[in-house]
Amino acid sequence: MSSMMRVQWKVLLFMFLVIFSKAISDKLESRTSVPHDSPSYCLGWRVAVETNNVHGWRTVPSQCLLYVENYMLGGQYERDLDVIMEQISCYLKDIVLANDGMDAWILDVDDTCISNLYYYRGKRYGCDPYDPVGFKTWAMRGGSPAIPAVLGLFEKLIEGGFKVLLVTGREEETLGQATLDNLYNQGFIGYERLILRTSAYKGQSAVLYKSEIRKQLVGQGYRIWGNVGDQWSDLLGDCLGNRTFKLPNPMYFVP
Amino acid sequence: MSSMMRVQWKVLLFMFLVIFSKAISDKLESRTSVPHDSPSYCLGWRVAVETNNVHGWRTVPSQCLLYVENYMLGGQYERDLDVIMEQISCYLKDIVLANDGMDAWILDVDDTCISNLYYYRGKRYGCDPYDPVGFKTWAMRGGSPAIPAVLGLFEKLIEGGFKVLLVTGREEETLGQATLDNLYNQGFIGYERLILRTSAYKGQSAVLYKSEIRKQLVGQGYRIWGNVGDQWSDLLGDCLGNRTFKLPNPMYFVP
Repeated sequence: MSSMMRVQWKVLLFMFLVIFSKAISDKLESRTSVPHDSPSYCLGWRVAVETNNVHGWRTVPSQCLLYVENYMLGGQYERDLDVIMEQISCYLKDIVLANDGMDAWILDVDDTCISNLYYYRGKRYGCDPYDPVGFKTWAMRGGSPAIPAVLGLFEKLIEGGFKVLLVTGREEETLGQATLDNLYNQGFIGYERLILRTSAYKGQSAVLYKSEIRKQLVGQGYRIWGNVGDQWSDLLGDCLGNRTFKLPNPMYFVP
Repeated sequence: MSSMMRVQWKVLLFMFLVIFSKAISDKLESRTSVPHDSPSYCLGWRVAVETNNVHGWRTVPSQCLLYVENYMLGGQYERDLDVIMEQISCYLKDIVLANDGMDAWILDVDDTCISNLYYYRGKRYGCDPYDPVGFKTWAMRGGSPAIPAVLGLFEKLIEGGFKVLLVTGREEETLGQATLDNLYNQGFIGYERLILRTSAYKGQSAVLYKSEIRKQLVGQGYRIWGNVGDQWSDLLGDCLGNRTFKLPNPMYFVP
């Protein structure tokens, strides 16, 4: 290459870099204020909820009602579950169990094993505030359907030799029997224990209560390989387990 | 109401519940296998990355190249940043500073303060594997543009009286000056310290290295009110701070 050509080539490269870098920079700066009722806002809100960037939210922003309905019923919710189940399957392949009966896996119950979508439909997918009496009435009926992807995981874990521990914030006294029946009727059969909230933990935050339960389980010798829940309060605190997996739930937040 | 009407009403209600509950159940069970190159798969993958459900991934699935390009350039990336900045603003309102010079806030540098989007465009938005030499060459040029939303947060924090601590995994020896210049040229002026990786931390994982740095900062008396990064390795480990905020980054994973 002649030195003239080299110079021309460098000039061309420099011009390209300047123009391109300007284009990227313009792109980054074109922050028009997107209305809060746009699907892109609601997607941003949902991802912020899923990443635990939004804390202590009480209701779904009402302008996102249709977005959340479409997310839950339109297929993306199941798609997101499938992607997570694939990740869990990859992780499971590498686990070598001691087979001493202490290899454990924790699953949350509400909107992890069984779905309250039907109930929350009547609460405008979480746009209405939490209604403890209404929810208890619903839970006592014991009619929450299994979430198929998680039932599949549950069966895989049991076949694989894990002790499956179901840990829920539901009150043992009032919801114990209904929850047992509901899980049984939906095919959750063969788990090690269902741990419900006894009066000793009444009023405690889910993070504290579930941490305490997991500490006891680890104290009993269980090795918690995985911990799956739809709430960050399932997946924060102590003795979390070797891997945690956050399932989607844009409808409510449990503190 | 006559007793006949009451009975009819109950029958109608029962039938409605049966039909509706079947519809929900069918919905939950209609898990057709969605192809892995569909936008819904790539959205599911992105959300799984953002929630830390996918660990140690090396490249963006190549079928998601166009999806990630569109996410980064089509407006949703900025929209997601805006939603997070709104959450940070809400959180900031409730903080009462001691004003003793020890109220601190940690920001990561790469793809938190300044953007490497232009570089990653040349790496097919992360579909190509990590190229340490290529990235170092890029970083030494010092031409990464500010991410406007984060520059806005940075200015707000400094005005609000926080000591802003920039903590990065970039190597001090080779990238120190270029990073200082890059940040200055992009308007990041007035921060307390820029902490780069010294030889003592060479080869250490980001979680360990950043935990160690934060422990030292807390040992020096800093109260870490907030910690913002685009990688989970910024936001896991010790002395995390009172709140952490995960910024989106679907292009690469730092272990």
